[in-house]
Amino acid sequence: MEGRIHTDRRYEAELKSLHVKILEMGGFVEKQIAGAVAALVSRDDAQARLIIERDHAINRIDVEIDELCLRLLALHQPAGRDLRLITTGLKITTDLERVGDMAVNVCERALDLNREPQLKPFIDIPRMAEVAQRMLRESLDSFVREDVEAALGVCREDDVIDALTAQLFNELLTFMIRDPQTISRTIPLLFIAKYLERIGDHATNIAEMVVFMVKGKSIRHMDQVPPSV
Amino acid sequence: MEGRIHTDRRYEAELKSLHVKILEMGGFVEKQIAGAVAALVSRDDAQARLIIERDHAINRIDVEIDELCLRLLALHQPAGRDLRLITTGLKITTDLERVGDMAVNVCERALDLNREPQLKPFIDIPRMAEVAQRMLRESLDSFVREDVEAALGVCREDDVIDALTAQLFNELLTFMIRDPQTISRTIPLLFIAKYLERIGDHATNIAEMVVFMVKGKSIRHMDQVPPSV
Repeated sequence: MEGRIHTDRRYEAELKSLHVKILEMGGFVEKQIAGAVAALVSRDDAQARLIIERDHAINRIDVEIDELCLRLLALHQPAGRDLRLITTGLKITTDLERVGDMAVNVCERALDLNREPQLKPFIDIPRMAEVAQRMLRESLDSFVREDVEAALGVCREDDVIDALTAQLFNELLTFMIRDPQTISRTIPLLFIAKYLERIGDHATNIAEMVVFMVKGKSIRHMDQVPPSV
Repeated sequence: MEGRIHTDRRYEAELKSLHVKILEMGGFVEKQIAGAVAALVSRDDAQARLIIERDHAINRIDVEIDELCLRLLALHQPAGRDLRLITTGLKITTDLERVGDMAVNVCERALDLNREPQLKPFIDIPRMAEVAQRMLRESLDSFVREDVEAALGVCREDDVIDALTAQLFNELLTFMIRDPQTISRTIPLLFIAKYLERIGDHATNIAEMVVFMVKGKSIRHMDQVPPSV
């Protein structure tokens, strides 16, 4: 009996450490986004390269979390709610890892842009990055707290970042058409906007998985985010 | 004892059906890519809309596979190799689902392009799509056959699709600079190239997961694909 209690306690501790590790991974990835956008805005090649270097660490955390999930599944053979929590954890790390790739992509475009004079002040892009980071943070919080309302809130916010992208797109197209010489600088900006939009998509994916984890209902591909599920 | 054999047989059958379902999902997604590119090339609005409609079905298959994986984990509590196979299956469907989204994105850009005269004959894009589809098929085959060599082959092919994208990019940039009036047609093509490149990335992700599943070693973020692991 004592052995059993011991095992349960260890299991609970490991389950908690899964939450902690996913939040840590999320925090790291969020810092990578912030660092990438800072490198872009300050036109700082060295910082851009540093962020690219650091991406390796994300992969290490990803492997660690995967291994923790596999251990939890193999040793404790959870069912029901816990099983869904662990398998969702496994899927979330894939999204976080890809968000890390987006930060690297932003840095690569920043390095391209730094070889030419600045086209326009960076106002929209830092604002988009802020929304993307917040969405990511809130999606992970909704996972840890198993909070469906918060998750649905993230899905709704996706429209905000999509609207900001569309607005920046139109502005950049006007630049290009007016002066084709700006194309080598507008195209990287177009892509950076797309990368940030994709971070919002990843956060939305995580939030949708949380809804599925808690409710067992898929809200993907619905035309509108439901008010509740 | 008979009950035990019965359970084992059922487990083996369900494990096999996981393979079958993932290959089916892959086949469906591959058809979506082919259909999207055909709709683009033939400038066929109706077909583009049909492909967009059909994306809902992918989500249904995704949910089905997730449920099968959860059932396998909950009822049979697999360990070792089987456990890794099932958790990799769970992750692969996420990639396949995103590839389906890429096919939808291609169709949306095709609908934009059809409102204007054609810029240039579609030669590079169908070629890129072929490479992307082949990579996807081979990555799923490598999963089912647990074939590390084949998986490494997919990772290597990623350079081919990246090179095709870069080539098309330069060509489109030249168009734009020469005649800024073409921008509203070159930008959608730029994005389509990026969508196809991302399909290659998803196939590479799947292949990397297969290597990890079989060898327990991560080859992500290596500068070069190793000759063997």
